[in-house]
Amino acid sequence: MRPSGRAPNALRPIRLEAGFAKHAEGSCLACFGDTHVLCTATVEDRVPPFLRDRGQGWVTAEYGMLPRSTHTRTAREAARGKQSGRTQEIQRLIGRSLRSITDLAALGERQVRIDCDVLLADGGTRTVAITGAYVALHAALSGLVANGTISTLPLQESIAAVSCGIVEGEPVCDLDYEEDSNAEADGNFILTGGGQIVEIQCTAEKSPFSRAQFSTLYELAAKGIAELSTWQRQALQLTPKTA
Amino acid sequence: MRPSGRAPNALRPIRLEAGFAKHAEGSCLACFGDTHVLCTATVEDRVPPFLRDRGQGWVTAEYGMLPRSTHTRTAREAARGKQSGRTQEIQRLIGRSLRSITDLAALGERQVRIDCDVLLADGGTRTVAITGAYVALHAALSGLVANGTISTLPLQESIAAVSCGIVEGEPVCDLDYEEDSNAEADGNFILTGGGQIVEIQCTAEKSPFSRAQFSTLYELAAKGIAELSTWQRQALQLTPKTA
Amino acid sequence: MRPSGRAPNALRPIRLEAGFAKHAEGSCLACFGDTHVLCTATVEDRVPPFLRDRGQGWVTAEYGMLPRSTHTRTAREAARGKQSGRTQEIQRLIGRSLRSITDLAALGERQVRIDCDVLLADGGTRTVAITGAYVALHAALSGLVANGTISTLPLQESIAAVSCGIVEGEPVCDLDYEEDSNAEADGNFILTGGGQIVEIQCTAEKSPFSRAQFSTLYELAAKGIAELSTWQRQALQLTPKTA
Amino acid sequence: MRPSGRAPNALRPIRLEAGFAKHAEGSCLACFGDTHVLCTATVEDRVPPFLRDRGQGWVTAEYGMLPRSTHTRTAREAARGKQSGRTQEIQRLIGRSLRSITDLAALGERQVRIDCDVLLADGGTRTVAITGAYVALHAALSGLVANGTISTLPLQESIAAVSCGIVEGEPVCDLDYEEDSNAEADGNFILTGGGQIVEIQCTAEKSPFSRAQFSTLYELAAKGIAELSTWQRQALQLTPKTA
Amino acid sequence: MRPSGRAPNALRPIRLEAGFAKHAEGSCLACFGDTHVLCTATVEDRVPPFLRDRGQGWVTAEYGMLPRSTHTRTAREAARGKQSGRTQEIQRLIGRSLRSITDLAALGERQVRIDCDVLLADGGTRTVAITGAYVALHAALSGLVANGTISTLPLQESIAAVSCGIVEGEPVCDLDYEEDSNAEADGNFILTGGGQIVEIQCTAEKSPFSRAQFSTLYELAAKGIAELSTWQRQALQLTPKTA
Amino acid sequence: MRPSGRAPNALRPIRLEAGFAKHAEGSCLACFGDTHVLCTATVEDRVPPFLRDRGQGWVTAEYGMLPRSTHTRTAREAARGKQSGRTQEIQRLIGRSLRSITDLAALGERQVRIDCDVLLADGGTRTVAITGAYVALHAALSGLVANGTISTLPLQESIAAVSCGIVEGEPVCDLDYEEDSNAEADGNFILTGGGQIVEIQCTAEKSPFSRAQFSTLYELAAKGIAELSTWQRQALQLTPKTA
Repeated sequence: MRPSGRAPNALRPIRLEAGFAKHAEGSCLACFGDTHVLCTATVEDRVPPFLRDRGQGWVTAEYGMLPRSTHTRTAREAARGKQSGRTQEIQRLIGRSLRSITDLAALGERQVRIDCDVLLADGGTRTVAITGAYVALHAALSGLVANGTISTLPLQESIAAVSCGIVEGEPVCDLDYEEDSNAEADGNFILTGGGQIVEIQCTAEKSPFSRAQFSTLYELAAKGIAELSTWQRQALQLTPKTA
Repeated sequence: MRPSGRAPNALRPIRLEAGFAKHAEGSCLACFGDTHVLCTATVEDRVPPFLRDRGQGWVTAEYGMLPRSTHTRTAREAARGKQSGRTQEIQRLIGRSLRSITDLAALGERQVRIDCDVLLADGGTRTVAITGAYVALHAALSGLVANGTISTLPLQESIAAVSCGIVEGEPVCDLDYEEDSNAEADGNFILTGGGQIVEIQCTAEKSPFSRAQFSTLYELAAKGIAELSTWQRQALQLTPKTA
Repeated sequence: MRPSGRAPNALRPIRLEAGFAKHAEGSCLACFGDTHVLCTATVEDRVPPFLRDRGQGWVTAEYGMLPRSTHTRTAREAARGKQSGRTQEIQRLIGRSLRSITDLAALGERQVRIDCDVLLADGGTRTVAITGAYVALHAALSGLVANGTISTLPLQESIAAVSCGIVEGEPVCDLDYEEDSNAEADGNFILTGGGQIVEIQCTAEKSPFSRAQFSTLYELAAKGIAELSTWQRQALQLTPKTA
Repeated sequence: MRPSGRAPNALRPIRLEAGFAKHAEGSCLACFGDTHVLCTATVEDRVPPFLRDRGQGWVTAEYGMLPRSTHTRTAREAARGKQSGRTQEIQRLIGRSLRSITDLAALGERQVRIDCDVLLADGGTRTVAITGAYVALHAALSGLVANGTISTLPLQESIAAVSCGIVEGEPVCDLDYEEDSNAEADGNFILTGGGQIVEIQCTAEKSPFSRAQFSTLYELAAKGIAELSTWQRQALQLTPKTA
Repeated sequence: MRPSGRAPNALRPIRLEAGFAKHAEGSCLACFGDTHVLCTATVEDRVPPFLRDRGQGWVTAEYGMLPRSTHTRTAREAARGKQSGRTQEIQRLIGRSLRSITDLAALGERQVRIDCDVLLADGGTRTVAITGAYVALHAALSGLVANGTISTLPLQESIAAVSCGIVEGEPVCDLDYEEDSNAEADGNFILTGGGQIVEIQCTAEKSPFSRAQFSTLYELAAKGIAELSTWQRQALQLTPKTA
Repeated sequence: MRPSGRAPNALRPIRLEAGFAKHAEGSCLACFGDTHVLCTATVEDRVPPFLRDRGQGWVTAEYGMLPRSTHTRTAREAARGKQSGRTQEIQRLIGRSLRSITDLAALGERQVRIDCDVLLADGGTRTVAITGAYVALHAALSGLVANGTISTLPLQESIAAVSCGIVEGEPVCDLDYEEDSNAEADGNFILTGGGQIVEIQCTAEKSPFSRAQFSTLYELAAKGIAELSTWQRQALQLTPKTA
């Protein structure tokens, strides 16, 4: 029995609220249970230096946690003067994943900056961030189509993400903090709406695990991401920018 | 006529939601119109090194803005590797103001850390932060009383803050971003619920102004802060910790 | 009785020595008693990036303390790798104050950098710095007029600054370190030679204070600043650049 | 046909030279073709602060590249003043992988620091680093057993790593730089000598890929790591410390 | 003919004013012509961590330049966030030189911190700093003897420093900025009052030079330092602490 | 008797292996006994900003140590976030020395970056670095001549370096770590192949020393550098680039 009473393959209650941030070109408040991440997309009319005059665009991401999003306070990275290795790893993952389904040539010489800020944390923040960031990116790019800046939406696929892991010997989907802290193995799966692989990161937390266990985790992830893709489509239909 | 249609002495719509942050010992989502600041209070059982073995406590504050709380994106301070001078000025102000009404000896050898994070910005973020931070601090300290850690609430007064300024020759209260950008003079007033002065910072933005003008701003501030004090009392009665 | 034997409204012995720094376009060694600040003005032929091609100039300031200007040694900020929040607050205040009385359009596309370095500290360093910085700025700008770079002096007013506070219940002017350490309330007043307000920062150090007390501090400040303005006029007549 | 003429499942020429670094408690110069990584293990008699008095040890890793290990010069991280996100990601991966097969309780309250420095880079540096780091760690821990500090070798398994990817539609093993730059998908597999999973990181570089393709990569990795495990055993028999 | 009209072996006008800094345990304003350096010595009752419980003391130094001590403004190191390589080289040299003539065991477990801040720069700042720092150190240590903290002055020798160089083919002593900028070779000599070598740094600025030229520079330095030693003795007799 | 059994004027076994680094335009693995430094030269087609449009080139250097090149582990500077004062001093010395024998005008508007990385440390790393860096620089510049970029080799002289010091009263050449740790005085001599002085840094480690002792050290250095120059010529003849 999971601490939350969920079935092994059940996601937490999902909420994806597009258009949450008043000023951003695209945004989504993404919640999987008690993990809440505010994702915004900012469109800029220039690309980073290494892409100048290359006729293509870029998508990048930054990630942060409010100090008291966590059970005990986490030190503010701005005050410490640098981002942790974990933060950098997560924001690189978010950016890389979004770029893999964006047609950067069709985007043209502009950059979309994604900001994912964790307001409340209860495990799985990077998967919630990716799932919400896709919605924010879609909304921002739809806005560029709507105002005639570009002619077609430069997205080849949707993506969503979920964590799966082995907790007390049992493979389960969408781990909360309590499960995550005790998992024997833990994986983050980022798949397209069509079920293709964008990125898999799977780690033995306590001891190595078998390929068969990995396959079970993969099945759980595929099912969860199919559901999240449905939530994403619903969230984007609620915002007039994507009509 | 103000852009918002408000009377010169009218505050924006006020919302103070105590207990907003699930994990914090005290918290308040404070909103003056479209300026939204999440304030949390964290209680720690030790004081900073310079106070060790002095038999008293400490209250300190940190401040931040989500990158896309603003009309155009503000660079993330954690990524830039340091807090701006403006950020440091604001967080020093918040901490100093709260300490001025806290009985640090009665608090005992513990520290309360206040985090004020701007989710949405439309002018006056530091005054919203102080007004909400007081609620978060009160809630956290009430919790210490409730669980028997300390015997009486170590707060001598309430405090709240508001900005007043001269916009197109007219003294007005609680400036929004549009007014703030065009103000000839601008002041932040931090007063106690009883109308005493905690801190005044008043600056000529375009050209020096007279003492008579200053007095008018003071009157507006005193009225606004009296109203904010009422909102604070209401917010704190809504949370069972303060019963 | 004040520790120094001064009357409540008496300044410390004032010395403003224009032209002290051999290489600078303008300079002033400003001393209020045992607080000595070396202020220099450097004229640069370009403006910061955010003002490029806007047809106006800029005035900015930096502040520092020699490590052993203080009773006990203060750690060198260059060695610690960053400026403290206090330093940033003070240098922002100096720059903002000087800009408020400078005609930035008449200055043209050039920047004046003010450096205020505390050689000896005995309270009130920021007010001494502002009072001396005005002299340095005036001298540098007069030089630009003298050599024909600009046609008229781009200064609308003079400014000076003094601290006033309540010490053992008594309102006094121009606090030295011993008084400053024990003040119940403490304010920095920056006024023009004509008595208009440029900036007021007034803080309750121990407990909130009344509006009547604030008014008394204001009176003391106005009198002190009138005297400082006279000293400034004398200092500037001593340097041939301002003839 | 691969640029190197290798069969799809063929590793590059492997060289693992244990004991290469004269001063280190354990070391290995690990070479896969033209990727050369010097791995050293340093044993320290104390653990990091978060583990103090917990009765267990720790293994951690740092990673760096000599500036001219690469085709064009890479800026020196020490001169830039910080480690890149990529560097942090790699060193976290190395440390995490080694900890997963180390019995930290049996290690006792000591820390092993692994340093992996790339002398020459031609793709796959992180997999070469992990493969060599295991040898260095084993040698250092064997030394602790040999001198009686601990009674049994606190290692539960061996680990090795290899990259596999899809290049021009073809799944291949142990990519060199030219292949890596053009891969459609790219994965790093870290498995135990017994074939269990320690960590898998698999990323779509150009476009999402299928689960069937992932399975092919996994097969290649399993075969390659079996071979690398043999090389590791040979390297450790060559050094008297492991006798 | 030298730009200043000095003879090749003539020092600039020397002024060593002991006791210049009101708060410091020892101090000296040292001037060689238009190079003015304020040197202070601070005595602390503890040693740096690497010397704890070793029964000896330490002498260390920091160096800085006021931004407008130079002809054109030098960026403030505290604002840039780090000390330059040149600054670190100079302060390491000052500390090393002073330690070479201090009996660190006789000093006991305390540290003397020397601060050398350049108020006005016209070449040779490091040699002025060392010459003044010795006076400040002597004064501070004499104070410790005077108040009974230690029984005898823990100084084995005096030291002073001067630069010598080859300018337009001519060996000269105590170069000013104009000479220094054009020197073919340039050396800093730090000798004891008795003429022994503490440190020599001699560099070809434009092209290598001969051993015979080096010998000439050495002769000039020995003569100059003998004179500086006399000035130091006079300065220390003027301050009552050394009586 | 020296710990190594060497005669007072004997160098350690010397090895200079040109072309060691596969990717660099010039390189040399330089070994004096157990001090091994990998030196590479990178040619860039642009100069640093301060030299733009001046019609000349530049040579600069960076220095680092692998963490476990030393007997006990040295903290990684990239992880600490800054280069130590010692590192900066050494890399400034290497760059300055190489520039003194390079015809920067003949080099044209390009920069050569030298990287010296210590793989194994046993005293004298800076002298080994300079000796090897000259070989790497020569190889890189010869390559520019060979491919027709410049017409003649822009080097006026060769340089090499050695340390000499007084150990237990005995002047000796090319100190290893054990000798260096106990030296009474220690000097680094950088001379041209023709015996002219490029730089001398000579320091009293324990107590001041005499000019006669200095002269003895100079003789030892001159002899050692003559031998090193022969090794350099041999190393460069082994690499076809210099034919």
